[in-house]
Amino acid sequence: MKKRIADFMHRMQDDITNTLHALDQGEIREDIWTRKEGGGGRSRVLTGGRLFEKAGVNVSVVHGELSPEAAKNMGGGQTLGAEDLEFYATGLSLVLHPHNPMAPTVHANYRYFERGDGVKDGAWWFGGGSDLTPSYLFEDDVVHFHQVLRDVCDEHAIGDYSRFKQWCDEYFHIHHRNEARGVGGVFFDDLRDENKESCFSFVKDMAAAFLPSYLPILQRRSNLPYDENNKRWQGIRRGRYVEFNLVHDRGTTFGLRTGGRIESILMSLPETARWEYCHEVVKGSKEEEMLNILRRPREWV
Amino acid sequence: MKKRIADFMHRMQDDITNTLHALDQGEIREDIWTRKEGGGGRSRVLTGGRLFEKAGVNVSVVHGELSPEAAKNMGGGQTLGAEDLEFYATGLSLVLHPHNPMAPTVHANYRYFERGDGVKDGAWWFGGGSDLTPSYLFEDDVVHFHQVLRDVCDEHAIGDYSRFKQWCDEYFHIHHRNEARGVGGVFFDDLRDENKESCFSFVKDMAAAFLPSYLPILQRRSNLPYDENNKRWQGIRRGRYVEFNLVHDRGTTFGLRTGGRIESILMSLPETARWEYCHEVVKGSKEEEMLNILRRPREWV
Repeated sequence: MKKRIADFMHRMQDDITNTLHALDQGEIREDIWTRKEGGGGRSRVLTGGRLFEKAGVNVSVVHGELSPEAAKNMGGGQTLGAEDLEFYATGLSLVLHPHNPMAPTVHANYRYFERGDGVKDGAWWFGGGSDLTPSYLFEDDVVHFHQVLRDVCDEHAIGDYSRFKQWCDEYFHIHHRNEARGVGGVFFDDLRDENKESCFSFVKDMAAAFLPSYLPILQRRSNLPYDENNKRWQGIRRGRYVEFNLVHDRGTTFGLRTGGRIESILMSLPETARWEYCHEVVKGSKEEEMLNILRRPREWV
Repeated sequence: MKKRIADFMHRMQDDITNTLHALDQGEIREDIWTRKEGGGGRSRVLTGGRLFEKAGVNVSVVHGELSPEAAKNMGGGQTLGAEDLEFYATGLSLVLHPHNPMAPTVHANYRYFERGDGVKDGAWWFGGGSDLTPSYLFEDDVVHFHQVLRDVCDEHAIGDYSRFKQWCDEYFHIHHRNEARGVGGVFFDDLRDENKESCFSFVKDMAAAFLPSYLPILQRRSNLPYDENNKRWQGIRRGRYVEFNLVHDRGTTFGLRTGGRIESILMSLPETARWEYCHEVVKGSKEEEMLNILRRPREWV
C-alpha cells in the first residue's frame, strides 16, 4: 500500500508537470534529492515560461524516527504511545505563481503518513487540500474552483466539503493581519476510518481534480491585460503570502526548524514580493473588493 | 529617569530623520499611534527620495501588564517574581534599505525596559545594538562601521565590544540557511549594573554614534553604478532579510503574536524581495565573496 500511494504521487507529479509545461513552454528543472535520515524526493520547477513566474511541484517519500515533541504535535489519535516514533510519509505538494496578476496563485498538497506499525488505530492517516489565492476577484473562478472540489467530496462518504472548506478558511488565515491568505478551498488532516482503501480513493480523486479545478481559470486569465498598478498590488498580496508561509504555515515552520531541504520548503514563496508601509487600497477599487472578501470569507457553492 | 530616556529617544529620532531627509530629499510620513493597553509611538518613514527604497525610524513608549509567559522569556534576573508584571518600555528602532545595491541596509535599536517597581535588582535594563547588511562586500565599510561602535564601547566600563560583537553574530544568524544576515555590529540585552546613569550614558553614546557609523558608507556607495544583475542579487539578499525577520527575530515574532502595531513591526521589511529556486552564486564573483563572509563571520577591528 505504501508503494501504491508513493507511485500514485509520482504519477500525479508527471501528469501535472507535463500538462503545465506544455502550456508554459519554458524549462523544467528536476532535482532528485535524498535525506540523510532516510528517503528523499523529486522536485520540479518550471522557469522561463510564458505563464508562471515560479511554479514548483514536489514529491517526497521520507522515513525515519520522529522526535518525541514532533510526535506529540501530530495526527494519529490517542492510541499511539511514545514508542511509536518510526514514521513513513509520502506527499505531493505544489505552488504555482502566475505572471499575470489576474491569474490566481494556487497551492495543493496531498500526503499519507504512517507511525509505528502503520496498521493499528491511529497509525496511519491522509491529509491534504487545495486553495486559491487571487490578487483580483473573479467570482466565476472561485465558484468553479470550489465546485470541482465539492463534487469530489460529494462522491465519497469520507469527503465532507463543508467541514473541509471551513478548516481551510481557518488554517489559511493570516492572524496578525486578520485576513485570509486567499479565497480558500479545502483542507483536511488526520483523515482515516476503518478502510484505508476508501480514504486513498478519496485522496486520489482529490489530487486528480487539481488540473480540472485550476486550468480553466489559468487559461481564461493569463492573457488579460494588466498595468503597473496591478503588478504592484500582486506584489503586495505576495508579501502577505510570504508572511503567512514564514510565520504561520505549520509545514514551513516545522521544516525550517527540523532541517528539511530548504529549497523544497521555500519553493512555495513567490519569486518577488512587496511591502509598502501603510499601504491602503483606494475606496471602490478592484483591490478593495478583493480585500473585503479576504476579511470576510464567504460560501461559494 | 523614564521621561529623560523617552525624551532622548525622541531627540535621536529627530536628529536621524532630519539628517537622512536632507540627503534623501523625498517625503517624510509621520504617524502618531496609540496602543489600547497603554502608550504609543511615533513612526516616521522616508519615501520617494533619491537614496532609500524604504527607511523607517520608529520611537515607542509603551506600558501595561505582561502576560506571565512573556515575563518568563524576558530579561530581569532571578529576583523578579510572578507579581512583577507591570512594565514600561521605550525604544528607538530604525531600518534603512537604500536603492543602490552597493549601499548596505542598516538596522539599529536602542531600548529601555522596566518591570515591577523599576528599582530593585533586575527591575530595569537596557538593550540594543546596530548591524550592517551589505549585498556586496566593501571591507572599508565594515571596518569603519565596527570601529565606530568599538570606540564607543571602549569609552565605557560597561561597553564590551568583543562580547557584544559575538552576541550580534549569534543573534542575526539565519539558522535554516546557516548564514549570517549581514556583517554584524553589536547586540546587547539585559544590560544593567549598580548605576543606571552610567548604563544610560553608554546607550546614549551608542545611539548618537549611529549617524557617524553609517552616513559615510551611505554617501560613498549611493552613487556607484550598478546593473540588473546587482539588483537581482540585492533582491535575493533582501529575501533572506525577510526570512530572518519573520522566522527568527524575537522582536518581530513577539510583536506579531501579541498584537502590536503591524505596520510598525513590519516597517523593517524591504520594499521588495526575491526568491529564486536553488539560486547559486557564480564561482569567483562578487556575490560569492559576500556569501563566503556570511558563512564565516570574521573579526573586523
